[in-house]
Amino acid sequence: MKGGPSQEDIRRHNLGTLLRFVHLRGPASRATLAESLGLNRSTIMALTADLTAAGLVREELPRGPGRRAGRPSLVVRPESTRVYVLAFEVGVDRLVVARVGLGGIVLDRREGVRSRDSDPADLIGVLVAGARSLVRKAERGAVCVGAAVGFPGTVRRSDDTIMFGPNLDVGDLRLGDLLSRRLGLGIPVSVCNDANLGALAEHERGAGVNSDNLIYLHGDVGVGGGIIAHGRLLTGDEGYGGEIGHMIVNPGGRPCACGSKGCLEAEVGERTLLAHAGREEIPGQPGRDAVRDIVASADAGDIVAREALQRVGTWLGFGVANLVNIFNPGLIVFGGTLRDIYLGAAAQIRSVLATGALAASREKVKLRTAALGDDTTLVGAAEFAFAEVLADPLQVLARLKAPEDSPV
Amino acid sequence: MKGGPSQEDIRRHNLGTLLRFVHLRGPASRATLAESLGLNRSTIMALTADLTAAGLVREELPRGPGRRAGRPSLVVRPESTRVYVLAFEVGVDRLVVARVGLGGIVLDRREGVRSRDSDPADLIGVLVAGARSLVRKAERGAVCVGAAVGFPGTVRRSDDTIMFGPNLDVGDLRLGDLLSRRLGLGIPVSVCNDANLGALAEHERGAGVNSDNLIYLHGDVGVGGGIIAHGRLLTGDEGYGGEIGHMIVNPGGRPCACGSKGCLEAEVGERTLLAHAGREEIPGQPGRDAVRDIVASADAGDIVAREALQRVGTWLGFGVANLVNIFNPGLIVFGGTLRDIYLGAAAQIRSVLATGALAASREKVKLRTAALGDDTTLVGAAEFAFAEVLADPLQVLARLKAPEDSPV
Repeated sequence: MKGGPSQEDIRRHNLGTLLRFVHLRGPASRATLAESLGLNRSTIMALTADLTAAGLVREELPRGPGRRAGRPSLVVRPESTRVYVLAFEVGVDRLVVARVGLGGIVLDRREGVRSRDSDPADLIGVLVAGARSLVRKAERGAVCVGAAVGFPGTVRRSDDTIMFGPNLDVGDLRLGDLLSRRLGLGIPVSVCNDANLGALAEHERGAGVNSDNLIYLHGDVGVGGGIIAHGRLLTGDEGYGGEIGHMIVNPGGRPCACGSKGCLEAEVGERTLLAHAGREEIPGQPGRDAVRDIVASADAGDIVAREALQRVGTWLGFGVANLVNIFNPGLIVFGGTLRDIYLGAAAQIRSVLATGALAASREKVKLRTAALGDDTTLVGAAEFAFAEVLADPLQVLARLKAPEDSPV
Repeated sequence: MKGGPSQEDIRRHNLGTLLRFVHLRGPASRATLAESLGLNRSTIMALTADLTAAGLVREELPRGPGRRAGRPSLVVRPESTRVYVLAFEVGVDRLVVARVGLGGIVLDRREGVRSRDSDPADLIGVLVAGARSLVRKAERGAVCVGAAVGFPGTVRRSDDTIMFGPNLDVGDLRLGDLLSRRLGLGIPVSVCNDANLGALAEHERGAGVNSDNLIYLHGDVGVGGGIIAHGRLLTGDEGYGGEIGHMIVNPGGRPCACGSKGCLEAEVGERTLLAHAGREEIPGQPGRDAVRDIVASADAGDIVAREALQRVGTWLGFGVANLVNIFNPGLIVFGGTLRDIYLGAAAQIRSVLATGALAASREKVKLRTAALGDDTTLVGAAEFAFAEVLADPLQVLARLKAPEDSPV
């Protein structure tokens, strides 16, 4: 329990809120900002002046059509090419690095296939090389204000250490520290569970912009989850919250990489779907393509593929019903390979939901595919990396600018 | 996204925070308040003066031993006998009404056995009669600032309507409105799920005071749940969040009152435990006594009772493992009849947890019984009823005092 904020706290809050507004919703006039933020025009002017001086926004004439007659109102626009973050996605089959500008603009990206037998040293080498080539191409004077990695496993929040990542055969890896040191940009690198980042991304820029209670389910080889409750990412005590893939939906069922049996991941993951469909993992072929093949075959009338999807859909339905009962969410979003599986097994999932969830809770819940497609993790990593500068814009910039002209 | 608070917002926040501090932690000196709330002494003095003028606190010499030499520091004490709420607990087998003073002091209570075949009209009649007799005994000039009911079922937050309460055979009942009108105190009556209130109570005054991520599991005839995430009760979009009792732990298992099969409630509820133990429900005997009998028999070596507890404990273990994976909570609290079941089946529950939950998430989670014993729901109802006055102390009192000398 703490007393109210000081004037300095309020100024910091207001600077962050204004910057966040143009970051998430795009350029806005002072009038729009005053109305949306509930602040008066003179306060907006003062805040904008501070953010402009710090190089975070600029004011300019509105672009394009729709300008009315008379003196046009200036719009406040984020300095997207000058203020950026590095976003990393580590998938089982792919690695992506992107330079994302304030405003959420992907300025540049490098993407590569990850071999399923590569080790952590390879992983770090590829990520660092990709990031360096992006940083070199940034415009002169541009500032990197944060970096974050999305990873399919459990990550301890206190020190960005991967605790458990069976699908990449990685455990107890201080990925955040290692990347930060190798990059040498003087910024920490956060590491987060990929599905947690997917939930954040869909909440801030995707299917869940208007939903404060949503669940994001992500399929890669395994199944991950991210939960937004009361508008906030649910982390739990140590950052492991949202491990929906290890909810046991079928006690005594298929063995899971975690050591348990009948986890959602074990019953609906890529390998199980392939096994049900009588197909084998093809070395070198990303799992997502294999899943899409099965959905396409089912659509084309292949009975084995259709039955495989139905079996997986039933267990996914039990998982969804449980989540609806536990969270009373407004929205459930399917991403990664679960996007394809949902499209192929929606009827099955809805049928289990109709009997397995309480009427009151299931009545208004919407099931949707990820609006950000294959980039949920990457967009989430960028948003996570921006969090600090949005919370305290001037402090972060002052800190970054202190070691003047340090070589990158 | 909103701009920072006004001076008036800050004053309201500070008044609420100070009042909340003495309400939850007890009488405190100005020095303690200044330090704990991070405010300076002159601000504390001004806030205390406002709250004193409103009749919410008083300042007086500290009581009892431990006074140091010199001029003693005054302590700020909540006006417990002058400012109170009405807390109602509707259980399957019992009804409780209490008058609870600011500071969480139970000033007076009425408790009765509920017959399992009584109807909503009986229910409301008993609650209103109990409340009236408590209000009549309040001291002259005392003010009732709120009222809340804990109920074992799903309650729509927007209008305090019970949507589903199979164990009391109640549905679509506007209990909040009905009680408010019958009481005639000019205050709304909130209705909440009993286990949600239990979670709130254990978080604010029980086993979870230091835990911001906790799950409360409550057994009556059915099984309810309440979730505290990031220090806040998880409600979901419409207030139905926390229906952990309807998580399906055993697909195709025992039929549940909700229409589904294999829900946690169906596998570990009172009736199932009795059936496993080969016992019958005895009309007129509260279920809690029957559950305690089975636990006592198992302790005394009764093999049938012991096996019944083990079966129930296994399913409860699956439920707990899922919750640990989904929430990464610091604490799980067992209340109501689950308190007894947990004590009788702890080894079973921990054994399922050890294989069914991820190591990272299960390592630090604590399992505990409810510190508030049989009063979790009642204490939670009182805290819920106090919420409004704690959020805006002066506004609530001004509103209540407006219809001066209205008869009670």
